[in-house]
Amino acid sequence: MDYPVSAKMRSLKPSAIREIFRYAADPSYISLAAGSPAPEALPVKLAQRLMAQVLEEMPMTALQYNMSEGYAPLRQALRDYLSSRHNIIKAFDDLIITSGAQHAMDLTAKVLCDEGDTVICEEPSFIGSLNTFRSYGIKLAGVPMESDGIDIIRLEEKLYANPHAKFIYVIPNFQNPTGITMSLEKRKAVYALAKKYGTLILEDNPYGDLRFAGEALPSIKSMDEDGIVFYAGTFSKILSPGIRVGYLIAPEAIMGKIIVAKQCTDVHTNMLGQSLCHRFMTQCDVDAHISSLKSIYAHKCSLMLSEMEKHFPRTVTWAKPEGGLFIWADMGMDGAEIAARLVAEKRVCIVPGSAFSTDENTNTTTARFNFSTPPDDKIITAIGLAGELLREIVREGTIHN
Amino acid sequence: MDYPVSAKMRSLKPSAIREIFRYAADPSYISLAAGSPAPEALPVKLAQRLMAQVLEEMPMTALQYNMSEGYAPLRQALRDYLSSRHNIIKAFDDLIITSGAQHAMDLTAKVLCDEGDTVICEEPSFIGSLNTFRSYGIKLAGVPMESDGIDIIRLEEKLYANPHAKFIYVIPNFQNPTGITMSLEKRKAVYALAKKYGTLILEDNPYGDLRFAGEALPSIKSMDEDGIVFYAGTFSKILSPGIRVGYLIAPEAIMGKIIVAKQCTDVHTNMLGQSLCHRFMTQCDVDAHISSLKSIYAHKCSLMLSEMEKHFPRTVTWAKPEGGLFIWADMGMDGAEIAARLVAEKRVCIVPGSAFSTDENTNTTTARFNFSTPPDDKIITAIGLAGELLREIVREGTIHN
Repeated sequence: MDYPVSAKMRSLKPSAIREIFRYAADPSYISLAAGSPAPEALPVKLAQRLMAQVLEEMPMTALQYNMSEGYAPLRQALRDYLSSRHNIIKAFDDLIITSGAQHAMDLTAKVLCDEGDTVICEEPSFIGSLNTFRSYGIKLAGVPMESDGIDIIRLEEKLYANPHAKFIYVIPNFQNPTGITMSLEKRKAVYALAKKYGTLILEDNPYGDLRFAGEALPSIKSMDEDGIVFYAGTFSKILSPGIRVGYLIAPEAIMGKIIVAKQCTDVHTNMLGQSLCHRFMTQCDVDAHISSLKSIYAHKCSLMLSEMEKHFPRTVTWAKPEGGLFIWADMGMDGAEIAARLVAEKRVCIVPGSAFSTDENTNTTTARFNFSTPPDDKIITAIGLAGELLREIVREGTIHN
Repeated sequence: MDYPVSAKMRSLKPSAIREIFRYAADPSYISLAAGSPAPEALPVKLAQRLMAQVLEEMPMTALQYNMSEGYAPLRQALRDYLSSRHNIIKAFDDLIITSGAQHAMDLTAKVLCDEGDTVICEEPSFIGSLNTFRSYGIKLAGVPMESDGIDIIRLEEKLYANPHAKFIYVIPNFQNPTGITMSLEKRKAVYALAKKYGTLILEDNPYGDLRFAGEALPSIKSMDEDGIVFYAGTFSKILSPGIRVGYLIAPEAIMGKIIVAKQCTDVHTNMLGQSLCHRFMTQCDVDAHISSLKSIYAHKCSLMLSEMEKHFPRTVTWAKPEGGLFIWADMGMDGAEIAARLVAEKRVCIVPGSAFSTDENTNTTTARFNFSTPPDDKIITAIGLAGELLREIVREGTIHN
């Protein structure tokens, strides 16, 4: 039987990353394709202790239905933390708990956009968010990245060409996939341009806390005086992704619609995860925990970079990220073909740059390498194998750009 | 600032039930408006034991990212249970874990329907699902309920009038809000009509296990030989709603799109809840647990019915449900006004029937009373207070139908 498929979903393909994720179950492969926290970054003892407390002290709250906008004490804890530390929640803002940050993109897109609307994004950008936008029939207008963030001149061109663009989607800190951090000047410029062209901004900050080098920069949301910035955050990278708890900060004037949209997807975010996050924020030394994560990722990043130095041919280039989970490399050759051969010949998974394009049929010479998930020995093995293949290819001259 | 709101979300109002839920926090109100499990039905000791096991034995699995289609062992356990007990999963079917059954409605609507498409539903029907359909710009075509389920003649009329209707949404067991169970003949007739008119069926069965009277009837899905029935189930009513774990069974041929839609909302359902459900299904006596729930609800239902007998004027009528969580009463007077006065004058919350209409501006003389959530003494008090008001109104003659 032929099933009807909505126009918005018809051309949508599964995320290349989620598909590559399937190899992760096979121990004969090494995956540098995921964006998962390091196993040693997941606070097992803490989760055991806090979950036991939750189910001992407030089992009814943890097991029963709750409010669509989220568990009130968690919302308060986040408000306190984000306003005191990051100057993020303004008087005109409200905060809703979402089922991971992905759900924050989903709700924002659903509430703001009709099919055929345009969203402007960094090019390349996080495939998960791009697919969410596509799943609502949204057109993507990509603006190239430079080493200090989105190309501001091209951004203005896109805004001028798309006067009804609903929002600009950006990941200013250690962007996924490029690892690039947007400069302070560019953050200000993006805000000014959004204001000038009467569009909104969706700022996605999953990795902001994981800065292991350089100076912290203020978020675009912290500059928001006009109620034009939506801000998505998550516990996935600082506590656990399996619990699926994120949040969305948006002006109160639009939050009513976002809450209704939330009711319509999953009624509310799971209470075991929300209770865990609440206890984590109010009973634990969050700074110390994040500090320990930074050491883990600083080490892993530096290990992968030094292995790349050792093994990759000179034709391959990359930038050193100041945080996050990814190294973005320009292979000087077709990235998709290299990624395919790397899986087939060396059992190493990376994500080709094309996966992150607004047009997935684009050829790119780039690829994303994740350093957070594999253990050290696998990083060493995988980069060695990738280097082997890259040198072979250069020798053979089988792939040219 | 005026925020843009998508056409599909513009006219959508918050669920009346979720709004009334706000009163639940105020102990001076008694809510008969929710659809929450009884506190004594939530297996606290079990959850404590199983969660401790999960975080002791498989913390990485519980805290890390997982597959979008759901935790494989839980999917297998559900397949085994549903096929052996209920003949539900066919060779052509697949199963995806969703974030509550609400999410199953969300994914089905998103994948199958374009804006402006029609979905046929029972009238009245579950407001949560109706709102999800509305949130995709879907038109609702309601078919009246009879005491043995949907009116089959009117259903065929609606199918004839809406030849491109995407699916028929039904809750055959102890329907929400009416408590009505669809007869076997009507289940067969709905299936035959869907087949005849080339439309799909979305069968929602949140309460099926909670039958405390009468004979179990086969689901429509169990009759599916043509791959035309989607089936939604949930752990909310037999284990815990706070964990937000449900599932959707659909033909494998369309499941790829459903998984992509799932990725786009929340990547995957939370792993704490999924692990808990898996242990519940594989290590516990599920039948014994469900048996204990049935006793709780049989008792509460019978208590509420006998209090209604005692206190309600003769102008009010209701049917005796064979399971589920609700009693549906015809007040013989405007239900919305009675519900409003009941909150204002007696601090008792019920949901007026109009909330469950495809057209919320319809006047109805009905209201939904929930017996599962309040403790016995509150049921007695609340029904007493409701009876007081109803008798006052009848005496005053202030509300006429």
